[in-house]
Amino acid sequence: MKDFTEKTLSSEQIFEGRIINLQVDEVELPNGKKSKRELVKHPGAVAIIPITREGKIVLVRQYRKPLEKMVVEIPAGKLEKNEAPFQTAERELQEETGYRCQALQYVTSFYTSPGFADEIVHLYYTDQLERLEVPLDTDEDEFVEVIEVTLDEAFKLVREKQIYDAKTAYAIQYLQLKQLVKGS
Amino acid sequence: MKDFTEKTLSSEQIFEGRIINLQVDEVELPNGKKSKRELVKHPGAVAIIPITREGKIVLVRQYRKPLEKMVVEIPAGKLEKNEAPFQTAERELQEETGYRCQALQYVTSFYTSPGFADEIVHLYYTDQLERLEVPLDTDEDEFVEVIEVTLDEAFKLVREKQIYDAKTAYAIQYLQLKQLVKGS
Repeated sequence: MKDFTEKTLSSEQIFEGRIINLQVDEVELPNGKKSKRELVKHPGAVAIIPITREGKIVLVRQYRKPLEKMVVEIPAGKLEKNEAPFQTAERELQEETGYRCQALQYVTSFYTSPGFADEIVHLYYTDQLERLEVPLDTDEDEFVEVIEVTLDEAFKLVREKQIYDAKTAYAIQYLQLKQLVKGS
Repeated sequence: MKDFTEKTLSSEQIFEGRIINLQVDEVELPNGKKSKRELVKHPGAVAIIPITREGKIVLVRQYRKPLEKMVVEIPAGKLEKNEAPFQTAERELQEETGYRCQALQYVTSFYTSPGFADEIVHLYYTDQLERLEVPLDTDEDEFVEVIEVTLDEAFKLVREKQIYDAKTAYAIQYLQLKQLVKGS
């Protein structure tokens, strides 16, 4: 297996934000030439596939400014300091959907855009949901509509391109696969 | 269905790069309060699921500076001006793997990180590959190792966390699903 490690020659901090930082590194390529790499630093995130006792999937609709439109997604949120990913997942699920979960199963982790960002998403699954009697406060700049759909409706939303978020498309494919394996 | 559109009050261009731009928008939230949104602008990308006549999947290993490691991915590349996505897909496949394809099937499109970026990935599938007699030049700052694995090996790479790129994990799940549906 080859190793194309790019040696960092210098690193310039361009921006430090609330969610992301941006830096530009000058690197030495495997052929000795120099190039620049634009790197978005992100704290990482969790996402949850929540299935109700009725077998419905709980989704959230929210406005995503980068896309300038409402986006249907599985519940998700960014990692906070001093919080383990599964704790973030439990908290975000409660805040966004009003459901508490008793048992969270780890599914997988993936990097969303390895070409320019280091964001990782840790994905969890639960079919052990309980509705909170008193809903939690959401983040003050977060507005979320909760929808519950059957798996067939979710598959249809993907086919009809009303779901076009990568982690959500992955999650729904995961459920399709689970259903097929179970049914076979 | 609710509408939580965030009205743009002002927009500040922070950075214009070779691959991405960064801007910070001040927005008015649905409750009338103000907030800031950090927005990474990306031209979009294509990715291809290439299956050889022997039924192997063609993957590429390359160094991804944001993750500071070698990453195994399906062939992919960013959209270029005045080039249709399927043309970009055909070109990137040739440049990265040395294969030409005769029939490219569109699979789906998804946004990789809707929380902070507008990157979209258009995904294609082909099992009609022909090896190029004369390989094309790759981009001068791109170093890629091509590997061909069976589907079972690919599933194993995912399980063992040697594949952790979102689009590639999606692609391999897609192949698993295709195999199950075909076999049932």
